[in-house]
Amino acid sequence: MANKEVNIGLIGFGTIGSGVVETFNLNQSIIEDKVKRKVNLKKVVDLDIETDRGVKIDPEKLSTDVNDILEDPDIDIVIELIGGYQPALKFILTAISKGKHVVTANKALLAKHWEEVMETAGENQVRIGFEASVGGGIPLLKPLNESLAANKIEAIYGIINGTANYILTKMADEQQDFHEVLKEAQDKGYAEADPTFDIEGHDTAQKLIILTKLGFGVYVKQEKFHVEGITRITLDDIEYAKELGCCIKHLAISTINDGELDVRVHPTMVDNKHLLASVNDVFNGVYIIGDVVGHVMMYGPGAGMMPTASAVVGDCMDIIEEMGRPITYGPPETRVTRIKNIDEMESKYYMRFAVMDKPGVLHAISEILSDLDISVDSFNQKGHEEGKFVPIFLVTHQATEKNIREAVKRIEKLETIKDEVLFIRLL
Amino acid sequence: MANKEVNIGLIGFGTIGSGVVETFNLNQSIIEDKVKRKVNLKKVVDLDIETDRGVKIDPEKLSTDVNDILEDPDIDIVIELIGGYQPALKFILTAISKGKHVVTANKALLAKHWEEVMETAGENQVRIGFEASVGGGIPLLKPLNESLAANKIEAIYGIINGTANYILTKMADEQQDFHEVLKEAQDKGYAEADPTFDIEGHDTAQKLIILTKLGFGVYVKQEKFHVEGITRITLDDIEYAKELGCCIKHLAISTINDGELDVRVHPTMVDNKHLLASVNDVFNGVYIIGDVVGHVMMYGPGAGMMPTASAVVGDCMDIIEEMGRPITYGPPETRVTRIKNIDEMESKYYMRFAVMDKPGVLHAISEILSDLDISVDSFNQKGHEEGKFVPIFLVTHQATEKNIREAVKRIEKLETIKDEVLFIRLL
Repeated sequence: MANKEVNIGLIGFGTIGSGVVETFNLNQSIIEDKVKRKVNLKKVVDLDIETDRGVKIDPEKLSTDVNDILEDPDIDIVIELIGGYQPALKFILTAISKGKHVVTANKALLAKHWEEVMETAGENQVRIGFEASVGGGIPLLKPLNESLAANKIEAIYGIINGTANYILTKMADEQQDFHEVLKEAQDKGYAEADPTFDIEGHDTAQKLIILTKLGFGVYVKQEKFHVEGITRITLDDIEYAKELGCCIKHLAISTINDGELDVRVHPTMVDNKHLLASVNDVFNGVYIIGDVVGHVMMYGPGAGMMPTASAVVGDCMDIIEEMGRPITYGPPETRVTRIKNIDEMESKYYMRFAVMDKPGVLHAISEILSDLDISVDSFNQKGHEEGKFVPIFLVTHQATEKNIREAVKRIEKLETIKDEVLFIRLL
Repeated sequence: MANKEVNIGLIGFGTIGSGVVETFNLNQSIIEDKVKRKVNLKKVVDLDIETDRGVKIDPEKLSTDVNDILEDPDIDIVIELIGGYQPALKFILTAISKGKHVVTANKALLAKHWEEVMETAGENQVRIGFEASVGGGIPLLKPLNESLAANKIEAIYGIINGTANYILTKMADEQQDFHEVLKEAQDKGYAEADPTFDIEGHDTAQKLIILTKLGFGVYVKQEKFHVEGITRITLDDIEYAKELGCCIKHLAISTINDGELDVRVHPTMVDNKHLLASVNDVFNGVYIIGDVVGHVMMYGPGAGMMPTASAVVGDCMDIIEEMGRPITYGPPETRVTRIKNIDEMESKYYMRFAVMDKPGVLHAISEILSDLDISVDSFNQKGHEEGKFVPIFLVTHQATEKNIREAVKRIEKLETIKDEVLFIRLL
């Protein structure tokens, strides 16, 4: 299709969709100069085409009928930005079956239907662009999949949910507790009315599935790995982390060792000297370790109308330029022999519990820990009040998750312990 | 050339060249799986093929005759890693004229001969891979040129010389002075025996020329912009920066405003809250601001045998996969109307001078500053000793470089001032 005009159809005229329209309004000529073709955003489909999105668009381009895109043989690339599983999946599969390339920011759909989407795309020899699905506008998936292609990837870990990172940052900076900050984030539009998806780690997990596929060649379903949110983190935890020269970040982690893949999402203590400790507010940052390159990090806005649109339009340009390239995402799966269970992981652990301040209590706890080969590196008790419950914080030396969980179970059974025991892994 | 084996010839079996050989030793199968071709590092040429580089290589692949690569019609890609201007340029132009793609890490050559190399490549429809020329193993040029292609780039600034960054980091961390740290860096192999190139900013300037071309479409020769090294920075400057909540970093900066391009290399005060303040030791970090994406940063090892080899081999894989793509580097030049002179820049400035501690001296200085519309934001004098020279540090409000330079000239003429006045721009 050399020199032929490229036609693009956009399904979903919401926030990101409006960003895509605005990007073409701003940079049409830059885009066309770069790909050396005319590029035409031909049709924009949404159920609601009445509401003013605040971006200029020729009303003739708007339609409520998705078939104006899916059934138009002149449309080469379909951008799917309606999100969710259905009808997004149906639209994507139809577009692919008609030989159209697809660009999407839909991490939920890719995380759940990766195999079906990619196999159908392979059969129809079309490309799927999904840079926007992880890390918003940050160049992340393309560098991982292309720039670092000469590497065996050894680890990917980072902050890939802006809402959770905003909450943890504000808690640390302004000494506000979780619920106060969450409310503020909701008021500012950084958190959804129902924030479960972000603060319980599901969004992070979906993105990690995509990163893991690109880095290690393995598609791991969310049920197969440990996902833990940030809802139990209190100001006390954050304060104690500070005393240790650390901060608490919500990390997505995927590492390989001797063929064993370790995938998990949980709050993690990060040394303040680590660059991830400086990734604050709604920003994202992802470390990638390759056997040849060593450590690299990509940082930037992990969400938002314009940043995400930058990745969506970048993907379209990539597809226009790369029609002839072989279609591969990530290395072959052969390096992975087994996916590890969270029980097997080893780390230093931070633990917090509320204990009755009376003689013998600490002894009972230390006996449990020592029974399970857990030794304590540092220990802190906040205040003394005989006969009352006081918070205790400790950091262990290297221990296995299995033993930590067993210790927590036993400690929680003690009558002198109130509430659940919280533990956080150290990076 | 679908499914045909790809043959690569490597000119230069030094540090990076050995890294390239080792990368193929480590990851040949990963590389071939990814590009879906056989890839053969067919020939390695160097004047010295006797010295043991510590990497395994079939002796039959070694040769001292560059024509074994340049004249071999089966070789598709030539990797040039001898560095310097000649004979590297001759080899590259010959390879291009024979229809061979070229991968190089040679920033000096590209910065000086950009137009000749790229025009010749365009005429011969071959690709030039040069990711390794800036930021070593960091995915940087490809994200800038491809992932962010939907953006008008507004600014590129960062730390792109590991030696200078190592020196500034160690000075700050260990309170050692410039010459001590430089010697230590030389002992560790982080600095050359003749370190001029790194510490005076020439290496940074060459890399900035390449970044500027990719970001703004303009090829700016080094004579056209301000390049200032780090040799005048003392421990006192670093200490005072700390008091201001800052650190001193050696930055390459290229920004555009109303068509006016502002390109410069100089030490800069960076707020500790800025992520670049956490880019330490030999690491590099580059911020890119696009009109659509906002701020992103790429971070990683900016030099070294294996990191640089990661970029070189990644470029080879890119070329193998992208034979059919249009060849463009950066946007068209039309956005730039003028390249600004350093005199026109505006910033807050840090200034340091040694003044005679006696009445009236400060008044003379403040008169000069006020005459030139420079107002002082903070001021600090270290110690008092009537009749002796004591160091004075100050930070100005926003001022023009032209006025600052005039002020420095006038202040240096005062009899009560010893040595040159140092000034550092704030980020």
